Amino acid sequence: MFHSTPSALVFLSLAAVAVGSAAMPDPRPNVVLIVSDDHGREALGCYGNPVVKTPALDALAADGTRFSRAFCTTASCSPSRSVILTGQQNHRNGMYGLEHDDSHFSSFSTVKSLPVRLAQAGYRTARVGKFHVAPASVYAFQTILSPGAANDPATIGRSPVEMAELARGVITAPDDRPFFLYYATDDPHRMNAVLPNGRPTFDTYPRPNSFGNRPEGRPGVTPVVYRPEDVIVPNYLPDTPETRAELAEYYQSISRMDQGIGRLIAELKAAGKYDSTLIIYISDNGAPFPGAKTTLYDVGMQLPCLVRAPGRQHPGAVQDGMVTWADLVPTILDFAGVPAPAAEFDGRSFRAGVDGGPLPGWNEAYASHTFHGITMYYPMRVVRTPQYKLIVNLASELPFPNANDLIHSPTWISATQRPDPMLGRRSIEQFLHRPRVELYDVQQDPDEIHNLADDPATQAAKSELLAKLKQWQAATKDPWLHKWKYE
Amino acid sequence: MFHSTPSALVFLSLAAVAVGSAAMPDPRPNVVLIVSDDHGREALGCYGNPVVKTPALDALAADGTRFSRAFCTTASCSPSRSVILTGQQNHRNGMYGLEHDDSHFSSFSTVKSLPVRLAQAGYRTARVGKFHVAPASVYAFQTILSPGAANDPATIGRSPVEMAELARGVITAPDDRPFFLYYATDDPHRMNAVLPNGRPTFDTYPRPNSFGNRPEGRPGVTPVVYRPEDVIVPNYLPDTPETRAELAEYYQSISRMDQGIGRLIAELKAAGKYDSTLIIYISDNGAPFPGAKTTLYDVGMQLPCLVRAPGRQHPGAVQDGMVTWADLVPTILDFAGVPAPAAEFDGRSFRAGVDGGPLPGWNEAYASHTFHGITMYYPMRVVRTPQYKLIVNLASELPFPNANDLIHSPTWISATQRPDPMLGRRSIEQFLHRPRVELYDVQQDPDEIHNLADDPATQAAKSELLAKLKQWQAATKDPWLHKWKYE
Repeated sequence: MFHSTPSALVFLSLAAVAVGSAAMPDPRPNVVLIVSDDHGREALGCYGNPVVKTPALDALAADGTRFSRAFCTTASCSPSRSVILTGQQNHRNGMYGLEHDDSHFSSFSTVKSLPVRLAQAGYRTARVGKFHVAPASVYAFQTILSPGAANDPATIGRSPVEMAELARGVITAPDDRPFFLYYATDDPHRMNAVLPNGRPTFDTYPRPNSFGNRPEGRPGVTPVVYRPEDVIVPNYLPDTPETRAELAEYYQSISRMDQGIGRLIAELKAAGKYDSTLIIYISDNGAPFPGAKTTLYDVGMQLPCLVRAPGRQHPGAVQDGMVTWADLVPTILDFAGVPAPAAEFDGRSFRAGVDGGPLPGWNEAYASHTFHGITMYYPMRVVRTPQYKLIVNLASELPFPNANDLIHSPTWISATQRPDPMLGRRSIEQFLHRPRVELYDVQQDPDEIHNLADDPATQAAKSELLAKLKQWQAATKDPWLHKWKYE
Repeated sequence: MFHSTPSALVFLSLAAVAVGSAAMPDPRPNVVLIVSDDHGREALGCYGNPVVKTPALDALAADGTRFSRAFCTTASCSPSRSVILTGQQNHRNGMYGLEHDDSHFSSFSTVKSLPVRLAQAGYRTARVGKFHVAPASVYAFQTILSPGAANDPATIGRSPVEMAELARGVITAPDDRPFFLYYATDDPHRMNAVLPNGRPTFDTYPRPNSFGNRPEGRPGVTPVVYRPEDVIVPNYLPDTPETRAELAEYYQSISRMDQGIGRLIAELKAAGKYDSTLIIYISDNGAPFPGAKTTLYDVGMQLPCLVRAPGRQHPGAVQDGMVTWADLVPTILDFAGVPAPAAEFDGRSFRAGVDGGPLPGWNEAYASHTFHGITMYYPMRVVRTPQYKLIVNLASELPFPNANDLIHSPTWISATQRPDPMLGRRSIEQFLHRPRVELYDVQQDPDEIHNLADDPATQAAKSELLAKLKQWQAATKDPWLHKWKYE
């Protein structure tokens, strides 16, 4: 169980905790990290959507803390998960793009991930559902409840109640050590079919993608079905029949996932562990619609983040400090009482901001995108403040590459077939061909349509943000730092 | 030794060979594959350079077969070595770029490499010198005589006579099984120094790079020193004092390497193994000068290839069939009598073309470059015939990225500082900013200066070559095939 550590003292103190646990329960919290796949926060009740039904997540928000300015640092599945699980930017941990198939990106073998750190501190660690990071030796969990291969239509990651039931054994194990459970759904990602050549296809046009919904349902789930005319079309999408049909399926997938999370929390309560467990709900990146995921516009990177910590005093607190997924590992380690040397992380603990505390000075978020799939090279570096979003497109000469699941979506096809091709308020042309620098006043222009990069009034702010961005790239060991000048 | 095979028959027949070897020597040849680092064929005596001293390689050519139209399939170290050792294009085996540091590209874990295939067939396998491919489990050698880390200034790969001495144990082992020795020098690559942050630097301006030459020499090597005024400046380089000073160092490095190869062949002869050993000499890619390596112009990809096979009848034969490094594994397996299912390879055996035989119809070579370092995205796909070179630059909107060792070279700096910045006959502007399609008549224009892609007279040839290229991309499972249309 215990890995060898350089310090015998550490080993002994941890062993003492474990050995003495029958008499004196381990005071450290359990950790349940719930990560959904492509859940944009605009489709969540507690973030203001009155149509989609998410009672379990809404209850978690009502009983914990809802973060109103939380951001992933890269809006692509594997790289974002690598940040979530390491506390390092993807350009520092080596996972520059997707893990599966041709792309086969992976983190450096020297990276020390959250489950490894917690296991070394005496936690039991287990995962269920989607994995999508590599190598397994870096992202090592002691217990693998389900394999979690990407693009597996038969994955249990589509059956969140079954996932919760699988996790029960971890929650109820007669073992006084605290546990870390990583519960990662495949919902509400788009569903694919695997072709005879082994490649996935997302091409269902003109039918909407199913988002994992099936006529026969999923075990333990009561389907919540939506009518296309009832969904809320966000500003970044075209209001077409195809989009509405897809949003209805998407909502259904979210409601399914919500029921799994509800069951998971019920399991915690039934085991008497709810009050001793740190519960975090996040999504890896924004919604699976063109214009959101794989972009670093706010619909791609500003995400749900709900935290329910043991000993909370202010249920329903809202935190407006800016936090990112690079902060998650330091925060979790802080709750777990595990040392987290600052030099090893690109984020910091926001524990003080859970349960109503202020986070003074937390007013910057940085993001980094380089690849989604291996052929989709489009490096972007971003700094976001409460007022501004600065995006530097380091290969702006190239067209923006659309993800395989999005370019075949009826939503995208319906947008491109309009007489005036638009993605919501953004033209397809503007979406595909971007300038090197984009600067948006996200307070005045939350849809990020009006680029102020050449506006005389914003030059001082732009210079300041550019300088911050370069400084951050250097601090986070970004290999693309040299791209500011020719090679 | 023997891995389990699906066929008991195969296992038994191999076992019979091994068990019966004391009475009846294994008739299969030993294999020595010599791979140098960045050795362009314009700096080799037997390919027509009267200045550089390469007596060992010239003797190998005189005693074996010299290929006059041999090509790597990608002019970058790790990807090229992955092709050399798998018989698959780098875009098929997953090694799209460099192995070391930030880049950390690797081949798919399912790839079956040459040393693994030969070991399964009962060969002893060993390597010495540069490695630079990953993962080690795919490129598994039974005996690792030296680790071969990239960018290690202390590597034995700079001391080729010592390498040969290290290999002696493999050559002389009292073991009747044939051996496969992979002997890969770091010469004549540029030499680097490792900075305190662990990154290499090649910045020596205005001094020439040392190319591994040292005042104290290398064990067993008699330094051959060249005067800058004596070297031959190839057409693709500027004739500046800096270039000449660097070429002189480069020649010295080549002569050092040649002495190591001479020692290696002397070891084979001393052990009585010379006549029973298939000896192949190649370079991974073209010369370490701007305009050659990392490009797919002929100076980057048309390379030395010398083969000396057991039982030769026509020493000094010259073969003008077009072969590539994707053909090496099928060829070696053919000599070794090991089955090489065509579907597993992107090349085919040129055994018939060794020792004077014709290679009718061998008149096409394909190449594929995507990355050198991870930040150097520049996908190119190439088809070369005796008359034409067609290059498709799939991200031609980007400037061509110059390798770290080249952009800091005095040769490059001297070229850019000229009043009219030129790399030989090509302008720096033309070098950095390339059209999507380049078509050269390499018979009329061997320096590939005059792009005929828009010439009405070549449209039929261009169409035919474009069609061939797409067909080849499909056949070799190229992930970039979809880049012919937007995503």
